[in-house]
Amino acid sequence: MEVGYGSGEKTGFFTQGRRSLQALAVQFIVKMVDLASSIKKLGQDDPRRVIHSLKVGLAITLVSIICYYQPLYSNFDETAIWAIMTVVVVFEFSVGATLGKGLNRGLATLLAGGLSIGAHHVANLSGNIGEPILLGFFVFLQATISTFLRFFPEIKARYDYGLLIFILTFAMISVSGFRDDEILELAYRRLSTICIGGAACVIISIMIFPVWAGEDLHNLIALNIEKLGNFLEGFGDKYFSTTGDEEGNDGNKFSEGYKSSLNSKTSEGSLANFAAWEPGHGRFPFRHPWKLYLRVGTLARECAYRIEALNGYLNADFQESSDVSTVIQEACTKMSVESGKALKELALAIKTMVQPSSADSHIENAKSAAKNMKSLLKSGIWEDIDLLKVIPGIAVGAILVDVVTCTEKIAESIHELASKGQFKSVEPPVSPENLPSEQNQSATSAQMVNSHHVITVSESTPAAPPGESSSVPKAS
Amino acid sequence: MEVGYGSGEKTGFFTQGRRSLQALAVQFIVKMVDLASSIKKLGQDDPRRVIHSLKVGLAITLVSIICYYQPLYSNFDETAIWAIMTVVVVFEFSVGATLGKGLNRGLATLLAGGLSIGAHHVANLSGNIGEPILLGFFVFLQATISTFLRFFPEIKARYDYGLLIFILTFAMISVSGFRDDEILELAYRRLSTICIGGAACVIISIMIFPVWAGEDLHNLIALNIEKLGNFLEGFGDKYFSTTGDEEGNDGNKFSEGYKSSLNSKTSEGSLANFAAWEPGHGRFPFRHPWKLYLRVGTLARECAYRIEALNGYLNADFQESSDVSTVIQEACTKMSVESGKALKELALAIKTMVQPSSADSHIENAKSAAKNMKSLLKSGIWEDIDLLKVIPGIAVGAILVDVVTCTEKIAESIHELASKGQFKSVEPPVSPENLPSEQNQSATSAQMVNSHHVITVSESTPAAPPGESSSVPKAS
Repeated sequence: MEVGYGSGEKTGFFTQGRRSLQALAVQFIVKMVDLASSIKKLGQDDPRRVIHSLKVGLAITLVSIICYYQPLYSNFDETAIWAIMTVVVVFEFSVGATLGKGLNRGLATLLAGGLSIGAHHVANLSGNIGEPILLGFFVFLQATISTFLRFFPEIKARYDYGLLIFILTFAMISVSGFRDDEILELAYRRLSTICIGGAACVIISIMIFPVWAGEDLHNLIALNIEKLGNFLEGFGDKYFSTTGDEEGNDGNKFSEGYKSSLNSKTSEGSLANFAAWEPGHGRFPFRHPWKLYLRVGTLARECAYRIEALNGYLNADFQESSDVSTVIQEACTKMSVESGKALKELALAIKTMVQPSSADSHIENAKSAAKNMKSLLKSGIWEDIDLLKVIPGIAVGAILVDVVTCTEKIAESIHELASKGQFKSVEPPVSPENLPSEQNQSATSAQMVNSHHVITVSESTPAAPPGESSSVPKAS
Repeated sequence: MEVGYGSGEKTGFFTQGRRSLQALAVQFIVKMVDLASSIKKLGQDDPRRVIHSLKVGLAITLVSIICYYQPLYSNFDETAIWAIMTVVVVFEFSVGATLGKGLNRGLATLLAGGLSIGAHHVANLSGNIGEPILLGFFVFLQATISTFLRFFPEIKARYDYGLLIFILTFAMISVSGFRDDEILELAYRRLSTICIGGAACVIISIMIFPVWAGEDLHNLIALNIEKLGNFLEGFGDKYFSTTGDEEGNDGNKFSEGYKSSLNSKTSEGSLANFAAWEPGHGRFPFRHPWKLYLRVGTLARECAYRIEALNGYLNADFQESSDVSTVIQEACTKMSVESGKALKELALAIKTMVQPSSADSHIENAKSAAKNMKSLLKSGIWEDIDLLKVIPGIAVGAILVDVVTCTEKIAESIHELASKGQFKSVEPPVSPENLPSEQNQSATSAQMVNSHHVITVSESTPAAPPGESSSVPKAS
């Protein structure tokens, strides 16, 4: 194969090289365009990400410049290291996470500093041979205990970062070969630089387009419930019209939304943790009941599991169109649509932070539809039927009854959230003709706790059936 | 109320004080006992946590001592800081997470060091006024871009920590007021200390009772599937015997197990990410198909959603005991028990890493039971029935048919995992009398891909119905 280094081959080599270079360049450009479009998509999905990136850049640059021009410290790199490091590590996406990390870092440094100075002092007393042994023992002990503490779920949720910094600071200070007065200066310098970095983070995080974890949690829960509602509102018509003909793709598209709430437990939990660090902001006071959102989220997830089962029937290739399903069709569609509407009203109530009064009537409608279906099935007009054909329709009906129960539970938990979170008790967009008096708006929260069921009745929409008022005896 | 400082009151004050002190002491002791028991529980649940804590303590002490006695560096605190910090931040519970963080830290430091030296050099050329402006611009640019990159899910999963360290190192070095040769020395020192810390972490993590994320993922998936199997095995008897009488508490206890797989998506994902960093260990070679475990996990979760729906019927207060349910009882119980057994066989196959051949016969049994139920319902012996009473039984039957389909999908995905992961093709505990030849064991993986269905048949247990062999035509 080796023919020698003829000039023809050389040209071939160069042409080949140029071609493969061209191919590489084209590939590179395609990749870059892909990358650019995915970057654009990421930014468009949530423009706050772009803003957050700029904020981090600003904070780091600011702190770097302060350190650069700061005449206070003679030895530059040490101080700059801690200030910049604090910004890089502490600056998180939401205000709550930033505050939590900043406080953890500051307090852990303070605590570990104090303890390690004590440990250093004790070790100093025990002479040249005993000192390293004692110091090693102290470091080992605190590192082991702190690491173990990080396994406790409650501690991990809130103080994980603090424990990390505690281990670090304690080991660093107690092992360092400084004299006591030098250590005090080191500790002072570290604390002051951490304060500079932390303050820069917190101020920029709060002042420039703040991202509140609490608000995110609030919106996430509302959105998840709305998606469940969207599915249910469309499900009845979809199911009873498509069984037989195939519109799978369109059906899939409309139903995908609810799936996000199946796996949102982790993000809800961490958002609630961050929210607990946040001061009052916008519509949310300092001690807003964030834990209650988690309960609403759990109930919504249980409802989503039922909806996942319903979705299975949408895509199933069961034969359908028995007598039974045509009879229960109306009741099923009503259950589905009414609980969907109820969920959407509840989501709207969370979003706008008003008492979710109008949802109750939809729930009553759904419950009466469920009763209706049961009595239809009970009425004994069924003779000589093919049970196999009946199965899917009846199974869907049974799951829908379950969904109605779930919806009721969700409504209850949101009522509790509304009263503890002091949601407003008027709802102008739903019944503007009622024009509730100003007294309602200024009602104390204690009154609101007991009054939302009563308000429900006085603001009932015209569409509500007579069965709706049955919720009043329950409340009293 | 102020009567003066009589001695009687003084005694009263002291007695009161002593009493409240005693109360405080009792409270404290009770709290401590509580704490001790919860620490004990945490340690007993997973003793590896205690070992991990001791390992971290050991690593930090070791690195501290090395730094303490290291004559190489004159300025102690700086070097100790980086080595200790590396250990504290990099040492994670599993080997994979530790390796991932260590590599991220090392590579990011190297890359950022190189780039920042370049930036520093360029800025130096632009004179006294231009230098800080250019440096600030560079720092701002890299911090913004790196922070934005951290929002990409794929990048966040594997390189989040590396980007953090990149921002940090770049800002620190480029802003520091050093001359070029000083910077090189700083970069060298930082890298060498990070290497010391990282090496200590990795060596201790791997040498002393290693915790492999891959093995954890493997066991987690097997355990989740086993729990689903446990529920299904018990469900049939439980449901058809308890409808009517109330044994809710016991029922709840037996069914709680499967719930853990409803929310295990996040932990499965992170374990798979960590596992990708790990070298070959024990039964797992270097490029074990960890991604396939995620697919099995997703399918298991879909099955768990169905089981969640089944569980709802266990606790429902529907009336039951219609003619229909007594007729389909046998078929339902068989579906449930057989798919439960299949899942448990599959879980065992994963655990012991053998081809899951014996599960197929159980799946065939479950499928024939499903057919059986359908033909029973079709047979038209149903006249004059109360559909309301029939609903729950039929709904349970329909969900069980769904569960059988899920089980089949899980089995398929595990077959794929078994062939790609080169599981052994013999299964001694199930059919010891068959004694498959050694050739099977030494079969190449390519053969195994195509042969597992055939092996299934040749190893079929005596209990398998004739319908079982129908899986062979499908495979060929």
